[in-house]
Amino acid sequence: MRLATIRTATGHRAVRVDGDTAVETGETDVRALLERPDWAEHAAGAAGPVHETAGLDYAPLVPSPEKIICIGLNYRDHVLEMGNELPEYPTVFGKYAPALIGAYDEIELPEQSDRVDYEAELVVVIGRSVRRADREAAAAAIAGYTVLNDVSMRDYQRRTKQFLQGKTWEHSTPLGPVLVTPDELPADPAAGGALRISSELSGETMQDSTTDQLVFGAVDLVVYLSEVLTLNPGDVIATGTPGGVGDARTPPRYLTDGAEIVTAVEGIGECRNVCRAVR
Amino acid sequence: MRLATIRTATGHRAVRVDGDTAVETGETDVRALLERPDWAEHAAGAAGPVHETAGLDYAPLVPSPEKIICIGLNYRDHVLEMGNELPEYPTVFGKYAPALIGAYDEIELPEQSDRVDYEAELVVVIGRSVRRADREAAAAAIAGYTVLNDVSMRDYQRRTKQFLQGKTWEHSTPLGPVLVTPDELPADPAAGGALRISSELSGETMQDSTTDQLVFGAVDLVVYLSEVLTLNPGDVIATGTPGGVGDARTPPRYLTDGAEIVTAVEGIGECRNVCRAVR
Repeated sequence: MRLATIRTATGHRAVRVDGDTAVETGETDVRALLERPDWAEHAAGAAGPVHETAGLDYAPLVPSPEKIICIGLNYRDHVLEMGNELPEYPTVFGKYAPALIGAYDEIELPEQSDRVDYEAELVVVIGRSVRRADREAAAAAIAGYTVLNDVSMRDYQRRTKQFLQGKTWEHSTPLGPVLVTPDELPADPAAGGALRISSELSGETMQDSTTDQLVFGAVDLVVYLSEVLTLNPGDVIATGTPGGVGDARTPPRYLTDGAEIVTAVEGIGECRNVCRAVR
Repeated sequence: MRLATIRTATGHRAVRVDGDTAVETGETDVRALLERPDWAEHAAGAAGPVHETAGLDYAPLVPSPEKIICIGLNYRDHVLEMGNELPEYPTVFGKYAPALIGAYDEIELPEQSDRVDYEAELVVVIGRSVRRADREAAAAAIAGYTVLNDVSMRDYQRRTKQFLQGKTWEHSTPLGPVLVTPDELPADPAAGGALRISSELSGETMQDSTTDQLVFGAVDLVVYLSEVLTLNPGDVIATGTPGGVGDARTPPRYLTDGAEIVTAVEGIGECRNVCRAVR
């Protein structure tokens, strides 16, 4: 099953996406849908207003998550390109909801930064509340997966030792377009499956890896994070990015006004965003 | 004016606290109240059900903020005790809502950490949406101030370079009891005013400083953060802690089962919390 949050003339709506059509489930967004204990059956049986997918205006998959949790330094190849050793523990930082945009929205490039970078990421979306999960409970708490481009203002990210201020600029971070349940994927990330993950900057491939390169996989992360606090429906865990980011290139490559950045995960879909300078 | 969020038999309620009594404003919590453009007049004129303050059960002042923004290394004396230099930019990290507890609730000490520490902090509460604020707009966006104890699992905080996983344990972080508007304070932090800020661990004074020691003050922080993204009503900015934290002492002092930790800011009030080991 594929789920999305779309913008309509009367506000956000959660939909089930079936090929060329999308059917409203009755909830305002995917978080509200996932907060129903019966979300899977409810969404599968939904028969609300129907839209053609060709004309859909995708909102961020979860417009207002309780938590946007980001993992850093989690692909073996990216860890090495950034000059780091493989980690013993996940590196965890946050992002706030106003950073999120829809999968095809424009990425805002603020004039304060001239080092705006892309990071293609596989995202775990939580579908049931869990605390202190074992591996079985962790896998059961995963509703599905989506794509996020963890756009990063590298200058702000490095102003201090804490990444957050470089990671949460307004309207910077595409999330979506759809949540795909594990049964529809060609390989299950919760079982260490290899999905291709990639990014293309104005047509040129910049990142190209597979999710079996993750140091801490989907289930590892749910186990680890749920020890710290309860994960709730609609929470998103961006699992980190593979090698090939612009800042690690020689010469560096950054996002510029008018450029198109596409971040994709096999079997899920892609975020395709034009970058736009704003003042 | 003093505002709070209380727990009642029928759920959370925002109240105006007038000495011995608290009057319901009609909103479910202080965030919902602050989201009204007329919140100040509305709260001042509120005449809902009345409670005696003696029996109040305080929820976190804002139970579900869109953003909990924390500032590190922001008191001259604390920066120096941690062995750091005075910063050029604010250090910014986050916390998630499930970390919050009421001002008199028990702090949960997880068995995973044996280095749980306290940090008394002055908190800015946002009362109106602002982006790219100048100093005047920043001051006008501050609804008032409250107290937070930025309880920190130092072992988790230092597992990686990013603080977040040591800062967001479930039910760790008291916030409240009340928001106090600037006109009621003996000195205005937005104008660099000196309010005493302190903590006491089981009766022994551990931190004792004044808010004029802040490297980046309330207005500086709203200006800086609102450049990155929109601040919204109910957002909380914990401005950092002064010297005297347990982890920097010789020998170190941590929170232990049954200990009482009191964190206070002059003119606002105090969080008074018993620590409780949980499994």
